[in-house]
Amino acid sequence: MILEKQNKIENNPLKYEDYEGPELKHGQVIVKVQANGVCHSDLHIIEGDFPLPPELFPLIPGHEIVGEVVESKSDIQIGERVGIGWFYSACGKCEYCISGKENLCPYATVTGINHKGGYSEYVALDSTYVSRIPDNLNSVETAPLFCAGITAYSAVRRLNIAPNDRIAVFGIGGLGFYGLQLIRLMGGKACAITTSHKDVAEKAEAAEITDKPSGHYDGAIVFAPNSKIVQTAASSVKSGKTIVVPAVMDKIEIPFSSFMWEKNITSVASGLRKETRAILDIASSEGLISMVHKSKLSSANEVLNNLKQGKVKGREVLVP
Amino acid sequence: MILEKQNKIENNPLKYEDYEGPELKHGQVIVKVQANGVCHSDLHIIEGDFPLPPELFPLIPGHEIVGEVVESKSDIQIGERVGIGWFYSACGKCEYCISGKENLCPYATVTGINHKGGYSEYVALDSTYVSRIPDNLNSVETAPLFCAGITAYSAVRRLNIAPNDRIAVFGIGGLGFYGLQLIRLMGGKACAITTSHKDVAEKAEAAEITDKPSGHYDGAIVFAPNSKIVQTAASSVKSGKTIVVPAVMDKIEIPFSSFMWEKNITSVASGLRKETRAILDIASSEGLISMVHKSKLSSANEVLNNLKQGKVKGREVLVP
Amino acid sequence: MILEKQNKIENNPLKYEDYEGPELKHGQVIVKVQANGVCHSDLHIIEGDFPLPPELFPLIPGHEIVGEVVESKSDIQIGERVGIGWFYSACGKCEYCISGKENLCPYATVTGINHKGGYSEYVALDSTYVSRIPDNLNSVETAPLFCAGITAYSAVRRLNIAPNDRIAVFGIGGLGFYGLQLIRLMGGKACAITTSHKDVAEKAEAAEITDKPSGHYDGAIVFAPNSKIVQTAASSVKSGKTIVVPAVMDKIEIPFSSFMWEKNITSVASGLRKETRAILDIASSEGLISMVHKSKLSSANEVLNNLKQGKVKGREVLVP
Amino acid sequence: MILEKQNKIENNPLKYEDYEGPELKHGQVIVKVQANGVCHSDLHIIEGDFPLPPELFPLIPGHEIVGEVVESKSDIQIGERVGIGWFYSACGKCEYCISGKENLCPYATVTGINHKGGYSEYVALDSTYVSRIPDNLNSVETAPLFCAGITAYSAVRRLNIAPNDRIAVFGIGGLGFYGLQLIRLMGGKACAITTSHKDVAEKAEAAEITDKPSGHYDGAIVFAPNSKIVQTAASSVKSGKTIVVPAVMDKIEIPFSSFMWEKNITSVASGLRKETRAILDIASSEGLISMVHKSKLSSANEVLNNLKQGKVKGREVLVP
Ligand SMILES: [Zn+2]
Ligand SMILES: [Zn+2]
Ligand SMILES: [Zn+2]
Ligand SMILES: [Zn+2]
Ligand SMILES: [Zn+2]
Ligand SMILES: [Zn+2]
Ligand SMILES: [Zn+2]
Ligand SMILES: [Zn+2]
Ligand SMILES: [Zn+2]
Ligand SMILES: [Zn+2]
Repeated sequence: MILEKQNKIENNPLKYEDYEGPELKHGQVIVKVQANGVCHSDLHIIEGDFPLPPELFPLIPGHEIVGEVVESKSDIQIGERVGIGWFYSACGKCEYCISGKENLCPYATVTGINHKGGYSEYVALDSTYVSRIPDNLNSVETAPLFCAGITAYSAVRRLNIAPNDRIAVFGIGGLGFYGLQLIRLMGGKACAITTSHKDVAEKAEAAEITDKPSGHYDGAIVFAPNSKIVQTAASSVKSGKTIVVPAVMDKIEIPFSSFMWEKNITSVASGLRKETRAILDIASSEGLISMVHKSKLSSANEVLNNLKQGKVKGREVLVP
Repeated sequence: MILEKQNKIENNPLKYEDYEGPELKHGQVIVKVQANGVCHSDLHIIEGDFPLPPELFPLIPGHEIVGEVVESKSDIQIGERVGIGWFYSACGKCEYCISGKENLCPYATVTGINHKGGYSEYVALDSTYVSRIPDNLNSVETAPLFCAGITAYSAVRRLNIAPNDRIAVFGIGGLGFYGLQLIRLMGGKACAITTSHKDVAEKAEAAEITDKPSGHYDGAIVFAPNSKIVQTAASSVKSGKTIVVPAVMDKIEIPFSSFMWEKNITSVASGLRKETRAILDIASSEGLISMVHKSKLSSANEVLNNLKQGKVKGREVLVP
Repeated sequence: MILEKQNKIENNPLKYEDYEGPELKHGQVIVKVQANGVCHSDLHIIEGDFPLPPELFPLIPGHEIVGEVVESKSDIQIGERVGIGWFYSACGKCEYCISGKENLCPYATVTGINHKGGYSEYVALDSTYVSRIPDNLNSVETAPLFCAGITAYSAVRRLNIAPNDRIAVFGIGGLGFYGLQLIRLMGGKACAITTSHKDVAEKAEAAEITDKPSGHYDGAIVFAPNSKIVQTAASSVKSGKTIVVPAVMDKIEIPFSSFMWEKNITSVASGLRKETRAILDIASSEGLISMVHKSKLSSANEVLNNLKQGKVKGREVLVP
Repeated sequence: MILEKQNKIENNPLKYEDYEGPELKHGQVIVKVQANGVCHSDLHIIEGDFPLPPELFPLIPGHEIVGEVVESKSDIQIGERVGIGWFYSACGKCEYCISGKENLCPYATVTGINHKGGYSEYVALDSTYVSRIPDNLNSVETAPLFCAGITAYSAVRRLNIAPNDRIAVFGIGGLGFYGLQLIRLMGGKACAITTSHKDVAEKAEAAEITDKPSGHYDGAIVFAPNSKIVQTAASSVKSGKTIVVPAVMDKIEIPFSSFMWEKNITSVASGLRKETRAILDIASSEGLISMVHKSKLSSANEVLNNLKQGKVKGREVLVP
């Protein structure tokens, strides 16, 4: 599905056309796409909310890719299943790359923006940055782990959960669903604050499900893209605790009374390989649940239209 | 100097009167005050910016106290020199107290508010919470370490400075003067951002002194009580780095573009005993410099008036 | 049960005699003992493997105490249930006490050595150091948490378990039983290395149970008091990983080839209040299982005799 | 200087012969060697203490290399100065490489063993793993930083030095000389334990220089390859503190009484790029001193003979 120019999704800007397959460079693999999760960011990319320079077009979106290696100029074998998320590659030698923080590399490139992404049949990926898929995971359920999953994982890991820590989760959508499960699997008590998504919180086996925060939390994660909710989160954690904000919003604004007493507020830039491998390992052995709905790649415009209108429950995954 | 009722400093609300000396309880010491630093918070307490319940009056302010023990119902000997800061005591058994974070104890009491403070000749202090003064330190220069000093120390320690990290310091007054010195003594490069206080930064041997932040800092401390400066600080540190805000202001407000990329923002609640002992140890062996001006205790109203009008350079210390 | 003089347990050195009840000091509580776990150290204390000065006698052993408060000169109410372990009290102001490491305090005193312990009907405890017992825990099953439990907890916490880390546990007795459960509850994979206690490992729901270590572990704990096993543990963890040794033995001896590659070896001095409270909280909410056998206090000599002869399975708990 | 076969240094096994210059591969640079430090490991490699497979011969030793880039198939420019140490390259994708611990990579290769090293005029280096040399550093003094320097740096960093921590250093040779300086530059008090090298400790401006450890250290580093000294170090640090052992010996053996109370013992596998860059940065801005003696490359056998006989003071650096 090729995007010639950024345009409103209502105009069906993605065209289902033949595209000359990717060229295989040294260190790369060609992957036959089996599943590509549809992320809300795709909508922003397609509709032009993120301005992009003309040389990136025609562009193929998609950054939650799982597929099978069909060609390789690397040590990955043909037939192996691999996946990639938002971060396509990094420089490998800057101060971030050499410190295990490749997601902060200033030379990082992005799947579905700088490189043709997963809304297609074949993609060329860098063998150094892909992750292998454990055999017992199916491709459709695994694809969303590559963006939604690792973002939630990264947020939860920032909290250094001690056993039985009560962690408040604000925003119980796709990421929150993973977040609640991961808090529980790491020994914490997942506390969902939600009015409309109690069913999702129950499915994630949250320890507490409430409309309003009860307070005295040992940490909080804000998946809802709303500055007011960051304020609520900050005022509901204990002194000395951390509020992680993986959501994107226009600003952070907190009254000082909710910030003082050594509270910490931090954002998340997702995508470390070690986090990706960790969540795949957890999914493989612990039975992390994904809520997915499978659609045809050719229906991508329609799927994104539904997403925009809030009609999508769980994660849509496109299959070529 | 007794405060009967909160009132503007212009009205000389502190009265120099005889006050029945403090009673000595089990575990306490009576200290003959040798020096008491004048903190900006004293002004807020006296003028009523912090509302206080009537049962706390008459009140004696002062929370940067150094003096000699003259009576003791504890293992501290008569003749020893000790000091106390903002935190007078904590409960000793809450989750914070048992984790080395007594400054977050919800039962903490405050010197000069809950207990008669250092604007006097004698104070009763809790032997568990005072710190001994190393012999080679003089009382007048040491008093300001008990609030200004440890707040700066605590802020600097939050940054986990690696050798040669460039740390931006915004607000080069009394706390900033200590902050710059401490960054240098911990192996970092102290970068003072200041237009009006370059002389102070030079005296602190700052590695860089500029009007405007050059950016790419490995951390930042905001001693200036100004939300705009927190924004500037946030946008001038590298990805993944921390902005420590010991200053008090009405709110934290930062555009998301300056917050994303895993930046951390945190506040400081000063007063750990281990921090106090550390800064006394540093002062004793490394020659940490204080900028102090000695005044008579009886001139407290006048000194505070000058402080309010911005006429004080360095730290005023009252001597009975 | 009073010990006049250290002596072999076969000689029934503990006498069941009336003892003048403890005196209640400021800050203390008198506790009616409901349960006291029998620890292997008790045997060493009684038999004289730890030489003790004469002024400590007559001595009453016992350092896994749970009981009800019947008198109080503190903020703990009569009727509350509390417990205490090996560490009876610490100084509250040394560098360890003020850093949340009271278990390293050089002035710490020990229950059942410096103070009359739990082999009795009433004990006087320091209200600052006891821990409250959650209502849904029964006293007999809870008593062993105060030494066996927190030692295991402390060992596991030293490993900073990441999700799915494979942790090898050597020595699957009472402590190992808790250790395996805690590793699982903190999100790790508990790997029991045992030939004779596979049933215990199964009851603890260990993820892997083997005769011999498979290697490549992300950490190891050695509960078996045997220097050879420390060697085995060191050679079976990955580079950069930690071997925790809560067991006591005469020396640590490891070939350099098993130590190099940044491995870490560390011991455990149990007893932090925050660890005690954490394990009580986990037991209360997660259903941590204890394996206990109840005996009469008056049969203490017999119980210790059985322990010495290796006839005890699980933990013996004495009830007055 | 080519080594055809491992042999005693007395037999002058290194031959000064023409060797076909290295071939330039994708991602590599050709470096004209300006200086190569002589490390004690070179002697072990040459004399056969480390058995090496025949396919590695003829071998060119040398792993403290600084030189100028004369050809490049990478983003490093001709004319830039770069250096490399023991670790020549790592895999870039194993669990260690993606966590900033490339020195533990099981696929790491070694300069002067797996690749022709610095006892030569030209070497081919991997552009991803070399470090750029700051302009104000001269090549001869900088070369030893690439093995001796970063090993000392890595050891010191493992101690998480708090301001004024007293750190004991055992073994005051080349590495110890760097170690003492680095402890001081990171805000600690460097305590040299030495009988024969007090002059070196003085030159490093150690805070304490003694024959015997005074005890109560906040950490210790053992640069002397001697198991007895590890025992001494363990017994002379405070409870809860760390003993770092960068030296290589046959075993670690410590009485339990010196190990208990939560002491930590750990080894060092040197070579992280971030550590290398950090020490170069420190050398560039802080004036870290090297003690070097320059010799001709062609005299390598003689220099190594002197090293073996203990005649070398400071670090020998070979210049082509
Ligand atoms: Zn996404
Ligand atoms: Zn959106
Ligand atoms: Zn990079
Ligand atoms: Zn103050
Ligand atoms: Zn408290
Ligand atoms: Zn015990
Ligand atoms: Zn025993
Ligand atoms: Zn203590
Ligand atoms: Zn070397
Ligand atoms: Zn690797």
